[in-house]
Amino acid sequence: MPFKFRYRVSWVDTDALGIMHFSNYFRICERTEEEFRILNRLEVPGISFPRVHAECDYKYPLKFMDTAEITLEIGDIGKRHIRMEFRIYNETKNRLSAICNIVIASINDRFEPVEIPEWFIEKLKNMK
Amino acid sequence: MPFKFRYRVSWVDTDALGIMHFSNYFRICERTEEEFRILNRLEVPGISFPRVHAECDYKYPLKFMDTAEITLEIGDIGKRHIRMEFRIYNETKNRLSAICNIVIASINDRFEPVEIPEWFIEKLKNMK
Amino acid sequence: MPFKFRYRVSWVDTDALGIMHFSNYFRICERTEEEFRILNRLEVPGISFPRVHAECDYKYPLKFMDTAEITLEIGDIGKRHIRMEFRIYNETKNRLSAICNIVIASINDRFEPVEIPEWFIEKLKNMK
Amino acid sequence: MPFKFRYRVSWVDTDALGIMHFSNYFRICERTEEEFRILNRLEVPGISFPRVHAECDYKYPLKFMDTAEITLEIGDIGKRHIRMEFRIYNETKNRLSAICNIVIASINDRFEPVEIPEWFIEKLKNMK
Repeated sequence: MPFKFRYRVSWVDTDALGIMHFSNYFRICERTEEEFRILNRLEVPGISFPRVHAECDYKYPLKFMDTAEITLEIGDIGKRHIRMEFRIYNETKNRLSAICNIVIASINDRFEPVEIPEWFIEKLKNMK
Repeated sequence: MPFKFRYRVSWVDTDALGIMHFSNYFRICERTEEEFRILNRLEVPGISFPRVHAECDYKYPLKFMDTAEITLEIGDIGKRHIRMEFRIYNETKNRLSAICNIVIASINDRFEPVEIPEWFIEKLKNMK
Repeated sequence: MPFKFRYRVSWVDTDALGIMHFSNYFRICERTEEEFRILNRLEVPGISFPRVHAECDYKYPLKFMDTAEITLEIGDIGKRHIRMEFRIYNETKNRLSAICNIVIASINDRFEPVEIPEWFIEKLKNMK
Repeated sequence: MPFKFRYRVSWVDTDALGIMHFSNYFRICERTEEEFRILNRLEVPGISFPRVHAECDYKYPLKFMDTAEITLEIGDIGKRHIRMEFRIYNETKNRLSAICNIVIASINDRFEPVEIPEWFIEKLKNMK
């Protein structure tokens, strides 16, 4: 079962067309990931996970005050990367709003690429 | 020759890792597109161009005060979509920072998909 | 009793000092206002409420993943303006983070200043 | 003579009313400050300048593609704080858009308040 997070579109998220700006989809995906990490205590001391790839396909707009439901599923897991798959639903209008994928890599405190610890990979795999 | 735009990374663009937040790459691509449109008077009355796809591959970070040089080239042009290809260089560090692609579609004032006028497609093609 | 809203600091809210960017305090105040308006069905057809004044005094930072509790109280209500008073607590660190005040005015669809309807002023006063 | 910086309103800066979101005025003030600091090499090693107060009075909106001209003047300078005074003009519409003031304090690497070095205060005073 995918992780779910609910988000109400704020005034600042909208643009002059009256819809949520396309860049903000990436931000609510990240917010979903954060809630997912907190819930599951997903932290690796000394390792950060910058994004190496991010993409969204936009299907249907989100307007001011619409509620978005975002689902997150862990996709492909490699030695150095993790793929996260998001679906953003416009719950208010009952439509799929966007499909987004974000790939993160692992780096240490000196910004050098490192392998993701085995225990963390196992933990993630057990959540699929 | 691609269109070029220069952008200095502002404090608000950075995150707690000290680098430009990944969502802001999409914003500086859009800013580049806007300057491109102003320079070339690229407007179609009654038609808006929402994004239907956006993606970035991140190669090297941008830090506070780094200067980014963004290039824009028009890619595939269809009856209802236009693909824009961006490269974001970290000019300060002399490294390629990201490669981004954004696809826009055409809608009218009632948010309905419409074909892009021929004259606009011709104008864009002549710029390639 | 003031209205309360809880907000977790997201990665994108932070800056290179590792704390929430000062401009984002205004955004979480607005988000609080939005939840307050939804809860109390505070809408006036044909009237918008742009901000005419906004200010914050910053006391203590909010870091990534810190939880903010924001309180909202309606302050001075005039014929054409409403003052909203916010306090932002860093709940995680148990410290007052900022005090913010925002004044909104009323305009119609043509961006002209108009008086706020009596019934709306009464409704707000009854909530104090 | 005040320092001047020019900024074109981007699509992402707008909201569903079609005007620049009020929080973004603070961001273009900061951007102006950054250009001012670069031009005048205003840096103090080991010291950061978080904001302790920020305020804006909004007079007239900025729309998409409008050009803003922002002026910055150094106001009151204390042992531990500096006040910066901004005026944001809508150059396209030839109107004053907003008046903003931002007060910064000085802290060291451990987030402790420290006095601003004399040489820095002198340098700033000589620029008034």
